[in-house]
Amino acid sequence: MTLAEQFDAITVETLRERGSYKWTAYPNSIGMFVAEMDFGTAPVVDRALRTALDNNQFGYISAPIARELSRATADYQQRRFGWSIAPQRVHPIADVLRGLEVVIEHFSAPGTPVIVPTPGYMPFLTVPGQVGRAFIEVPLLNTGGRYEFDLDAIDAALAQHPGALVVLCNPYNPTGRVLTTQELLAFSEVVERRGGRVFADEIHAPLVYEGHLHVPYASVSEAAAAHSVTAVSASKAWNFPGLKCAQLVITNDADAQIWSEVKGRLNHGPSTIGMIANTAAYDHGQPWLDEVTEYLQGNWQLMQSFAAEHMPALRVTQPEGTYIGWLDWRGYDLGDTPATLLREKAGVALTAGTSCGQAGAGFTRIIFATPRPILQNALEQLADAVSGCRTA
Amino acid sequence: MTLAEQFDAITVETLRERGSYKWTAYPNSIGMFVAEMDFGTAPVVDRALRTALDNNQFGYISAPIARELSRATADYQQRRFGWSIAPQRVHPIADVLRGLEVVIEHFSAPGTPVIVPTPGYMPFLTVPGQVGRAFIEVPLLNTGGRYEFDLDAIDAALAQHPGALVVLCNPYNPTGRVLTTQELLAFSEVVERRGGRVFADEIHAPLVYEGHLHVPYASVSEAAAAHSVTAVSASKAWNFPGLKCAQLVITNDADAQIWSEVKGRLNHGPSTIGMIANTAAYDHGQPWLDEVTEYLQGNWQLMQSFAAEHMPALRVTQPEGTYIGWLDWRGYDLGDTPATLLREKAGVALTAGTSCGQAGAGFTRIIFATPRPILQNALEQLADAVSGCRTA
Repeated sequence: MTLAEQFDAITVETLRERGSYKWTAYPNSIGMFVAEMDFGTAPVVDRALRTALDNNQFGYISAPIARELSRATADYQQRRFGWSIAPQRVHPIADVLRGLEVVIEHFSAPGTPVIVPTPGYMPFLTVPGQVGRAFIEVPLLNTGGRYEFDLDAIDAALAQHPGALVVLCNPYNPTGRVLTTQELLAFSEVVERRGGRVFADEIHAPLVYEGHLHVPYASVSEAAAAHSVTAVSASKAWNFPGLKCAQLVITNDADAQIWSEVKGRLNHGPSTIGMIANTAAYDHGQPWLDEVTEYLQGNWQLMQSFAAEHMPALRVTQPEGTYIGWLDWRGYDLGDTPATLLREKAGVALTAGTSCGQAGAGFTRIIFATPRPILQNALEQLADAVSGCRTA
Repeated sequence: MTLAEQFDAITVETLRERGSYKWTAYPNSIGMFVAEMDFGTAPVVDRALRTALDNNQFGYISAPIARELSRATADYQQRRFGWSIAPQRVHPIADVLRGLEVVIEHFSAPGTPVIVPTPGYMPFLTVPGQVGRAFIEVPLLNTGGRYEFDLDAIDAALAQHPGALVVLCNPYNPTGRVLTTQELLAFSEVVERRGGRVFADEIHAPLVYEGHLHVPYASVSEAAAAHSVTAVSASKAWNFPGLKCAQLVITNDADAQIWSEVKGRLNHGPSTIGMIANTAAYDHGQPWLDEVTEYLQGNWQLMQSFAAEHMPALRVTQPEGTYIGWLDWRGYDLGDTPATLLREKAGVALTAGTSCGQAGAGFTRIIFATPRPILQNALEQLADAVSGCRTA
């Protein structure tokens, strides 16, 4: 059986039995709201984890394991994206959100609000408040379904809040955009001119589709490297977000100094086997990921062709990377939160676009990393549910 | 082979190959400074982890897994310690230190220093600073080698800082004390009178020796339950601190309200398989732990009898629980940090007592959860190293 055939054969029943969040939160719905794949992880990662169990690697983080992770992360970034980073500037953290928390607290100007382009990953709107900061939504410009930064609005926000942090998610959750060098450069010039800081969440970087290329933000210019902190991980592409390990990449001396003062807070965060899983994925996981990427590409092609035929008023943003789709339901008369209605009427659990910011009213986020027959069913159920709806 | 024979057979070479922090940080020393055991985990935990791998349980935390953990934690506390807690008041967190961080920030009066009885677990002295708080050391009273609270000093500290948080570690790291109901009650009365808060770190609770009994702090009185937040975990007794999962137990309605507001910060912290490991350990791990406890008891008996014979000026505090020994080297002329000298001269890596606070000058902490032949070697090397020392 090919990998694609194996994926196709996974049933809803199996997924529910495994007990994941995605498949247990709504027992009567098809789960498409949690950003994880229904395909397990790569065999090389699984083997590395079993070897870790054989060796009782449940203890505190050790220097050799941390060094290997830093080396593997740097190798991977160099090999895949041509980004040269010093392994000693790659630091394990529990996850991207913990990284964001610490970067807000220690790398942005005290008391400044966090600037979040929206629609944005839902926790970007809640983490600031959890560390006592406000946030400012800066809606992206939507030009015929293509989402771009509103640089004037970012400029204005930074002008008002010197030293504030802008959250940059690339590949972009939830729009699926993979930003170009030109876009990143233009963005970095605004930030640099205003003395802002950037948190670059590049957790989806390994998952980019044909015709697109992930460009690490800190690699576009010295200025970008000097004002940003980057978070990466193998946890999305190789599908183990629950193992708790991401990496923070520091790209300038001043930040390295801050990091040395605050790292004590984060040392205990990542799991040892999460580190081992990341290392295995970066070093040996590419062949599996290549097949998965192809499968995912087939999934969004299905989503687009199906929608075109059966849900003509639905606009499907074409993802350039990630397994996250961004669906514009405003063509139907479903109100601001179609997710609620679609869960009830279609039995498909999607993320409410409004969780991604006010800019998400009328939209839903969909995780399409699911066996294709399940995706097909979900699409059919969605089409049935909206078939009677008045179009706007 | 009995479990004890299996433990005896583990070699230094094997431990170094496994790559743990304890056994790689000082390649030429016997590692006795990291609070983890050299024995792996219980077979029931190992099986639960392998089943989790079989089921691809690498994803985000799900409600069924979290519910099982809360249920198992509450069952365990009831069964072992007679403490009745509502499962819905048991919350997964990454580890005790993350719990401490959040409890300082959200459950103690803003800006107050953290009151830490010392000698104390090293991070208790660094976490406050990491969240922008000062700390106050309140040395324990050492009465003939038995460590007790200096209630007058705690009273004075709380009088000066209303609403401040006192860190209570029981079973006590590093003194090995298991506090009695009477001691806990007396402590709670001081805290209650002064309107203080308590963070009760009870992570070592499952590991208590014959003749002693762990008493959960929040169980001693309504007042204690009303002013404390408790952290527990199976990670010490069943030996998987690197899997990242502890539990915070909320014991009053006011704190439940605070928790509901701040829990978003912690939801992403614990690993899914860490939760599964905790559940398996609580539910089925006792037979293994009983054998381990007996082995550890033999270890500290060896430590005490060996010291009495070969290091007569060393005072070994008899542990009542934990696998942590607290050694008083002041009888020898080794200065304030004997750990440095003993690592160099004896080739044994111990924790400097001064890392546990000023009260630790002249002391070292020793983790004696190691194969007995290795402990024997370490003790011999220590005896050789101090044999020529002037006694004080």
